[in-house]
Amino acid sequence: MERIDGRKNDEMRAVKITRDYLRHPEGSVLIEMGDTKVICTATVEEKVPSFLKGTGKGWVTSEYGMLPRSTQTRKQRDSSRGKVDGRTMEIQRLIGRTLRSIVDLEKMPETMIWVDCDVIQADGGTRTASITGAFVALVDALNHLVSIGKLKLIPIKSYVAAISIGIKDGEVLLDLKYEEDSTCKVDMNLVMTEEGNFVEIQGTGEENPFTKEEMKEMLELGEKGILELIQIQKQSLGELSDKVGTKK
Amino acid sequence: MERIDGRKNDEMRAVKITRDYLRHPEGSVLIEMGDTKVICTATVEEKVPSFLKGTGKGWVTSEYGMLPRSTQTRKQRDSSRGKVDGRTMEIQRLIGRTLRSIVDLEKMPETMIWVDCDVIQADGGTRTASITGAFVALVDALNHLVSIGKLKLIPIKSYVAAISIGIKDGEVLLDLKYEEDSTCKVDMNLVMTEEGNFVEIQGTGEENPFTKEEMKEMLELGEKGILELIQIQKQSLGELSDKVGTKK
Amino acid sequence: MERIDGRKNDEMRAVKITRDYLRHPEGSVLIEMGDTKVICTATVEEKVPSFLKGTGKGWVTSEYGMLPRSTQTRKQRDSSRGKVDGRTMEIQRLIGRTLRSIVDLEKMPETMIWVDCDVIQADGGTRTASITGAFVALVDALNHLVSIGKLKLIPIKSYVAAISIGIKDGEVLLDLKYEEDSTCKVDMNLVMTEEGNFVEIQGTGEENPFTKEEMKEMLELGEKGILELIQIQKQSLGELSDKVGTKK
Amino acid sequence: MERIDGRKNDEMRAVKITRDYLRHPEGSVLIEMGDTKVICTATVEEKVPSFLKGTGKGWVTSEYGMLPRSTQTRKQRDSSRGKVDGRTMEIQRLIGRTLRSIVDLEKMPETMIWVDCDVIQADGGTRTASITGAFVALVDALNHLVSIGKLKLIPIKSYVAAISIGIKDGEVLLDLKYEEDSTCKVDMNLVMTEEGNFVEIQGTGEENPFTKEEMKEMLELGEKGILELIQIQKQSLGELSDKVGTKK
Amino acid sequence: MERIDGRKNDEMRAVKITRDYLRHPEGSVLIEMGDTKVICTATVEEKVPSFLKGTGKGWVTSEYGMLPRSTQTRKQRDSSRGKVDGRTMEIQRLIGRTLRSIVDLEKMPETMIWVDCDVIQADGGTRTASITGAFVALVDALNHLVSIGKLKLIPIKSYVAAISIGIKDGEVLLDLKYEEDSTCKVDMNLVMTEEGNFVEIQGTGEENPFTKEEMKEMLELGEKGILELIQIQKQSLGELSDKVGTKK
Amino acid sequence: MERIDGRKNDEMRAVKITRDYLRHPEGSVLIEMGDTKVICTATVEEKVPSFLKGTGKGWVTSEYGMLPRSTQTRKQRDSSRGKVDGRTMEIQRLIGRTLRSIVDLEKMPETMIWVDCDVIQADGGTRTASITGAFVALVDALNHLVSIGKLKLIPIKSYVAAISIGIKDGEVLLDLKYEEDSTCKVDMNLVMTEEGNFVEIQGTGEENPFTKEEMKEMLELGEKGILELIQIQKQSLGELSDKVGTKK
Repeated sequence: MERIDGRKNDEMRAVKITRDYLRHPEGSVLIEMGDTKVICTATVEEKVPSFLKGTGKGWVTSEYGMLPRSTQTRKQRDSSRGKVDGRTMEIQRLIGRTLRSIVDLEKMPETMIWVDCDVIQADGGTRTASITGAFVALVDALNHLVSIGKLKLIPIKSYVAAISIGIKDGEVLLDLKYEEDSTCKVDMNLVMTEEGNFVEIQGTGEENPFTKEEMKEMLELGEKGILELIQIQKQSLGELSDKVGTKK
Repeated sequence: MERIDGRKNDEMRAVKITRDYLRHPEGSVLIEMGDTKVICTATVEEKVPSFLKGTGKGWVTSEYGMLPRSTQTRKQRDSSRGKVDGRTMEIQRLIGRTLRSIVDLEKMPETMIWVDCDVIQADGGTRTASITGAFVALVDALNHLVSIGKLKLIPIKSYVAAISIGIKDGEVLLDLKYEEDSTCKVDMNLVMTEEGNFVEIQGTGEENPFTKEEMKEMLELGEKGILELIQIQKQSLGELSDKVGTKK
Repeated sequence: MERIDGRKNDEMRAVKITRDYLRHPEGSVLIEMGDTKVICTATVEEKVPSFLKGTGKGWVTSEYGMLPRSTQTRKQRDSSRGKVDGRTMEIQRLIGRTLRSIVDLEKMPETMIWVDCDVIQADGGTRTASITGAFVALVDALNHLVSIGKLKLIPIKSYVAAISIGIKDGEVLLDLKYEEDSTCKVDMNLVMTEEGNFVEIQGTGEENPFTKEEMKEMLELGEKGILELIQIQKQSLGELSDKVGTKK
Repeated sequence: MERIDGRKNDEMRAVKITRDYLRHPEGSVLIEMGDTKVICTATVEEKVPSFLKGTGKGWVTSEYGMLPRSTQTRKQRDSSRGKVDGRTMEIQRLIGRTLRSIVDLEKMPETMIWVDCDVIQADGGTRTASITGAFVALVDALNHLVSIGKLKLIPIKSYVAAISIGIKDGEVLLDLKYEEDSTCKVDMNLVMTEEGNFVEIQGTGEENPFTKEEMKEMLELGEKGILELIQIQKQSLGELSDKVGTKK
Repeated sequence: MERIDGRKNDEMRAVKITRDYLRHPEGSVLIEMGDTKVICTATVEEKVPSFLKGTGKGWVTSEYGMLPRSTQTRKQRDSSRGKVDGRTMEIQRLIGRTLRSIVDLEKMPETMIWVDCDVIQADGGTRTASITGAFVALVDALNHLVSIGKLKLIPIKSYVAAISIGIKDGEVLLDLKYEEDSTCKVDMNLVMTEEGNFVEIQGTGEENPFTKEEMKEMLELGEKGILELIQIQKQSLGELSDKVGTKK
Repeated sequence: MERIDGRKNDEMRAVKITRDYLRHPEGSVLIEMGDTKVICTATVEEKVPSFLKGTGKGWVTSEYGMLPRSTQTRKQRDSSRGKVDGRTMEIQRLIGRTLRSIVDLEKMPETMIWVDCDVIQADGGTRTASITGAFVALVDALNHLVSIGKLKLIPIKSYVAAISIGIKDGEVLLDLKYEEDSTCKVDMNLVMTEEGNFVEIQGTGEENPFTKEEMKEMLELGEKGILELIQIQKQSLGELSDKVGTKK
């Protein structure tokens, strides 16, 4: 059975990462995974949250949004509705946790990095694209701190990327497009490091619990995708790529 | 190394489920897992969400809350802050998805069941206790629909329960107390059916990505706990227990 | 004419006060008046409101809530509606004023006590049960300050309790159940001290103004009920009961 | 001991009621009690609340507000704070209940009357002045319905007015000014009909519970004040005054 | 063609400014332009916004509101809707900018003046009446600072007033009433100083773009009106009028 | 005196309009004016606002937003603050009014067009760039209605564009960059049609009222810029450009 856009089950969509996409932020990236497009920016602020004041540690946090017409039908702005919806909160908490897991916060100066992921066009996988792009923007922002002398080294312990995997009509599929995502029986988002360790796993079988065997297949396929994404991150970072990861 | 309350690594806390805990709801349960206590109620409403009107299908949704002093230090009310926090949203979405995954919504009449989980006392694992207790309250509410002639059979496809697993000092631990949870390097919540299939898996290693071997151990330990919890659900349901699950 | 549950006109429902109901708060009580059940907790916080900073005086404040399914039909959460309703505000202001009227704030250390009253099950009289139970939780929290050496004596000037009285079909009734309350022509809530002095009186005859004679009868009946409640508070407090009240 | 403005203990401030104060509303009144000035308007709307649709009954509701600089120091607007404060809610609920208690809602057409009380200048007693003025605005709005043929008679069962009473330095005082109100040990608001029946009584002794004898004195003084206010309402209404009250 | 109220095209409505309208504010004015009535108050606060702390400069800001029944049909309160509407925000920003343009903020002490404009009765031109009245209230508040020794001179550089102009059926009209305003094809609000300089110009031709010739006529007519308004401000200020404006 | 980026006083920044920028919306444009970049989308919805139901008329409305890091320092999201700020409201009302002024709403089918302008990168003039780009997106959305047979002709009466003009150090400047805008003494936004008629004029001299001569110069310079922008819109629209404007 062929996928809707002709891909093989284990084939990712084309990925493109454009660094320095915007002029103002310390790090900014446009990441495109097929038709999904997300602007990821990383902003350095002097002010840390109150629970960190005086500790000498830094912090990384994240916010996520969608332009009203990034989606097939127009989505009302959170600001018009007066509150952030639950899905948005889940996603921005996920991005924040992921980034904090691979940054050595102890080695950051007492600063805060805001990572904003704003979806310009949505076609499935916006949260995983956000993570993969946000990582690159974060590297640039931390490198900015190096370049102005606030840091000696980029305090990132490992590369990290994310991908979605799903099960549809009994087939395990990598990197779901919107039409696949919305008809899948099982939906998993996987966040892994370059070393193949898990940062986050979120799997849900809303209408259809899944078996251990399916779980195993999804994890294998996900890992394959993530390693490909990390190669793309490295190419995008160019010579900076060697300065990231504690082994370097 | 012994755990803080003397349990073995693979030992759950004492679990107690009290049915018919409140007078008004169609289903109501007090679930206690050690010092964690949650009131779960299931309310039948005639009105379904607008996207289901006229479809003949039912719906199950959930809300979650904590009493201000369920926690060690007082937690401000969401209503005072004017908005629901992200953690609360994540948990109530998780409970709702879980329950919908094991109910045959097509076989429900066009009604909506609200499942409210309110934490009276918190000592870790409130979301998993909520799921395990909510399942029982839901059975009672659906059985109420049977008893008044709105349903012939309880449209539940499978038992479902949830448990937390974590890694602390290199040991994989089942059913974390608060002190364990807050110091764990890895935190996983697992929701499984009686058949050993996955409904939800949420694992996070905020400060410490975890390996595939650790993942495997956590899944095994979690399954063990969930099967024990389902036995407790069955004892609590007594003769109703045979009317649940499509195999019956 | 007999009342709906067989009580006499001047007869209160069975009252039960369970102290130390929860593990975390400095004071916590479950009060049951018939089918009305309220959890009252008292939390000690170091931080006083800004208008008291540096005065050396303490403060007592209160918040009130209902579980969504404490009521006969499910009540939407304030946090979902995004605001606290007027009835809730009135009640929590009433509880706060009442407790402050019998505490000697000058003798408290510069701390704040939050009293939370959360209705688990409602069958009329939730605000009066809240006050009666909150008093006991407050005593325990103040005694906690004594036990850790922050206070020498419990700075409570007098016992206080509250009861509802109503007029239905020309009869003056004590301690209204929900069905009575919702069909009463006149509804009064009375808060009195052990000495028979008024702390609060709130009477309303929404559809039916009431006469001076009816007023007199309601006050007498209310006082009778309040003195009974104070005896129950004392039994519940046991040996602590003698340490409360300025006469002691 | 003389009062701050030279009044006797049982003496009300000068009261002035200006009808037809504004051009647009069906009823509008400026009431002045000493330096307290409130604009009361009554608006007729076709739409009743949903719980009354199809019942043929009418409804009366009320909202209350203060101009930011009606008070001695500027009070932040509710709209800037994003929510209505508890005091405002209590007052508008009180005004609404009071007016509904003396209107025969069954005899109103299926319309809704909004009564808005907006304090232009505050010097104590704004809620009681609001009630006394709102009554007159309501009569005018109902008379408007008579004049356009929607009603045969003004469906008001009784005159109603409100006054504050307090205890200061052991003296019972009628109609408190702000300086008296803020230093009083006991504060009571009384709403009564022309027949001397109670519509609402709200008494609070925040720092100082009050005795039965003090209660008795306050009620007598309050009734005296209310009967004077009703005479002023009647003079203001002129020939309309005879068309109000079921005895007429 | 005659205007609805018999005025000539270039004729303003009767204007009346009552100073010291309220007792508490440092400056307070009732301005009436025909049936439009606005209470303007100016409040002196010690606290400046954080961006001005320590600069030694003062600040002027403004808020605007309408009583619910100032309008022909009742307008819901912003506080009930939970947010301020866009029109209100535009107007209060306009008033604030205008007043800041003619005050020498450098010469003010480090204080903040809140100018509140509350519409009691609306018949078109509420924003322009607010500006014209607010100016007078501001003079009084600044003069209060002079009288208590916090200022030597009133730091106002120029008189300022505002007027509306519109085009209806090809005629350019000064000072629109509500019925004219709501049927006009072009609507302009002009704010000018005594010297004939522009502070603000806001013109909109929502359904009908307007020509340069029409623009010219509107500006001329507006200037005529503004100079008349400034004469009225001066008469109202009496002997204070000479202390305003840098030329004096 | 040379401008910061070397432009002449009457020289606009480079303008680039990219049509069909996004995949989902009926019309979508990226407009770049120098470093200011705005995504403008036009969405067709079947549902009109309630005041238009059954009238057979259409409607055009607009919302405006900025990505958090479009600006030099990060701007908090409206959705995090829980409310839309005043500046945003002013701008989106301006865009909506402008577009409605040149669309023949009577000739639209009973549909609603949402125009969203989201600033990706800000360097001054975001509101005027939004209008200029939104016009093109709107043409595409209306042309979509033509292509699916819901409209015969594009019901646009005239081209419209917008530009900013300011006065700095006595020089009148066209199309202000951020650094110019924030230091200008006078700031004007002009919206004009191809015929040279005014749709909107908003001029403000917050700290420095401006003279009639300066006004005249600003209007002339603005018109020059607007006519250039309309030529760029036409080139962008290509063969569609002839189908717009009633003269065609």
